[in-house]
Amino acid sequence: MRVDALNDLHVIVPAGGAGTRLWPLSRAGHPKFLIDLTGTGRTLLQQTWDRLTALVEADRVHVVTGRAHAEAVRDQLPGLRHLLAEPTPRDSMPAIGLAAAVIERRSPGAVVGSFAADHVITGDDLFADAVGHAVAAAREGLVATIGITPTEPATAFGYIEAGAPLGTGAAFAITRFVEKPDATTAAGYVASGRFSWNAGMFVSRADVLLGHLARHRPALHDALVAIADEIVTSGEIAVGAWEAITGVAIDHAIAEPVSLEGGMAVVPGRFGWSDVGDVDALAELIDEPGADVTWVDADGLVLTDDDTHVAVVGLHDVVVIRSGGALLVTTREHAQRVKDVPAALRAAGRDDLV
Amino acid sequence: MRVDALNDLHVIVPAGGAGTRLWPLSRAGHPKFLIDLTGTGRTLLQQTWDRLTALVEADRVHVVTGRAHAEAVRDQLPGLRHLLAEPTPRDSMPAIGLAAAVIERRSPGAVVGSFAADHVITGDDLFADAVGHAVAAAREGLVATIGITPTEPATAFGYIEAGAPLGTGAAFAITRFVEKPDATTAAGYVASGRFSWNAGMFVSRADVLLGHLARHRPALHDALVAIADEIVTSGEIAVGAWEAITGVAIDHAIAEPVSLEGGMAVVPGRFGWSDVGDVDALAELIDEPGADVTWVDADGLVLTDDDTHVAVVGLHDVVVIRSGGALLVTTREHAQRVKDVPAALRAAGRDDLV
Repeated sequence: MRVDALNDLHVIVPAGGAGTRLWPLSRAGHPKFLIDLTGTGRTLLQQTWDRLTALVEADRVHVVTGRAHAEAVRDQLPGLRHLLAEPTPRDSMPAIGLAAAVIERRSPGAVVGSFAADHVITGDDLFADAVGHAVAAAREGLVATIGITPTEPATAFGYIEAGAPLGTGAAFAITRFVEKPDATTAAGYVASGRFSWNAGMFVSRADVLLGHLARHRPALHDALVAIADEIVTSGEIAVGAWEAITGVAIDHAIAEPVSLEGGMAVVPGRFGWSDVGDVDALAELIDEPGADVTWVDADGLVLTDDDTHVAVVGLHDVVVIRSGGALLVTTREHAQRVKDVPAALRAAGRDDLV
Repeated sequence: MRVDALNDLHVIVPAGGAGTRLWPLSRAGHPKFLIDLTGTGRTLLQQTWDRLTALVEADRVHVVTGRAHAEAVRDQLPGLRHLLAEPTPRDSMPAIGLAAAVIERRSPGAVVGSFAADHVITGDDLFADAVGHAVAAAREGLVATIGITPTEPATAFGYIEAGAPLGTGAAFAITRFVEKPDATTAAGYVASGRFSWNAGMFVSRADVLLGHLARHRPALHDALVAIADEIVTSGEIAVGAWEAITGVAIDHAIAEPVSLEGGMAVVPGRFGWSDVGDVDALAELIDEPGADVTWVDADGLVLTDDDTHVAVVGLHDVVVIRSGGALLVTTREHAQRVKDVPAALRAAGRDDLV
């Protein structure tokens, strides 16, 4: 994929989410996207930046994050020109919609692609190919999503069912979006060959996206366009107007209703992908423990930020993570419940540890 | 028990054993008996000293330990007058036999009682009572052992089967010593009411003990008496003579053969007792975790020597111990296998962690 082939593409990087299932690595003050979770020397945000600036010029990258993280984002991305700092979190639709409205004001007819700041992707060429096919579908007036070809019957993700091929066959109509399935249902999805994982990657002409928003969420559309106008003229987010917005996910506001209208397409993504959603996913990504570990009839993931020697006896798929003065001990099986730890700490008034 | 009632008793405290099943708390350089394992502010050795010096004068306490630990023992017990520092470990019979020979040389006809330096005992009055009954049996020429009344069908200890009552009924003949049983056998022992745990507490006249040794292990007897003579005259242990000794446990050298001859007695000990043999036993002793812990569907023992906040998710009977730059993660079920950690570290050349 040559960069000039994507010369109408602007990318939006929503950088949010607490990552509470990755405590104690991820904290309120330095959430998942700001961390070098996989030990590559680049944080997830920086890896996302590297991947996207290989496709588009830095001037066409917009990062949307919370005010508390704006400074850290600027520090990590010295080349970033466009940062939208949300006064308060309002979920993905307002974040992406605002960026799309700003981009449309500045570059009418632009294609926008939204890619989360905290996912891990391997196979940059396959990623670039998928983006190219999604942009092609977007130019035709469709809202395209890149669906990840499943490698296992995962129950932690929503799925997208593909229908008939569209055009040249690199994109497909969408029959439906489905929520996280149970294991049996997931196995059926994967066996059918028609389902992909919903990784929240959306590519659309900005005017098309805003048109759908105007029809399905008119009040939100009008508020975002007004806030975008203010940003383009004064450079400031109107805090009161932003705070008056009701938060909603782009899946509910756009993807589901527009797919029912036949306005969406899915492009298969065959690159390696992980949302690094919990310590189980993290253990899947990290082949070798980063710490000095003695295993006695045991295995799993051990990460420490000091030189403690760790020994594990008789526990399999264990997860031991020491970070910033806190230590988590669990197993991969219980990965989803790790979020209960920061919740309990907050309830106990230990915000210093959250 | 008044101290003057035990005015012929001298106590011997063998302070040895690596405590490898308590890694990383117990290390080669500071083994179990030198540690405040139970968080009382006193090490196991100091607790043993306190318990015994409530019964006899400090001048009648002999500690036998390895040379490497002599200085630490003196530091922990400023009131100690008699320390025998073994050049090399030779198991319990030479340690106790040498101290008995020294005491017999200095105080002919003395009663000696041997009590390990690394056990936890609760109920000092009940302990003193048992010692008093054992001393009474010893004065009659028997080798008395204090058998712990079982509180559960433990499989980690040897058992002593009591026979007919002797004299006033505070002591019993010994039918047999048995090795660590399986769970079913242990349950039968406990149900019978005749069995007690072998805690390695032996009380005997020194001349009686040495007489048995002379009959059953004449070479060892002669070597120990010669080494004791040298100590009494010059204050020095003859290293060559000591190193030429073949090590043997007092159970094999004296207790088992003498019980078959009818020369032994068992006195029931109804005080609380633990050999703190592994992390399972330690968890039993420590009601409250000493660390700042968040439990999410989890329970067990967490001990740390720093201010790390620990969170455990979904693991029951977990054991998490951080000590001296090392961290152990296991469950109580696997307590016996913790000894494989220092073994693996030693094999890997990591003696600094052992």
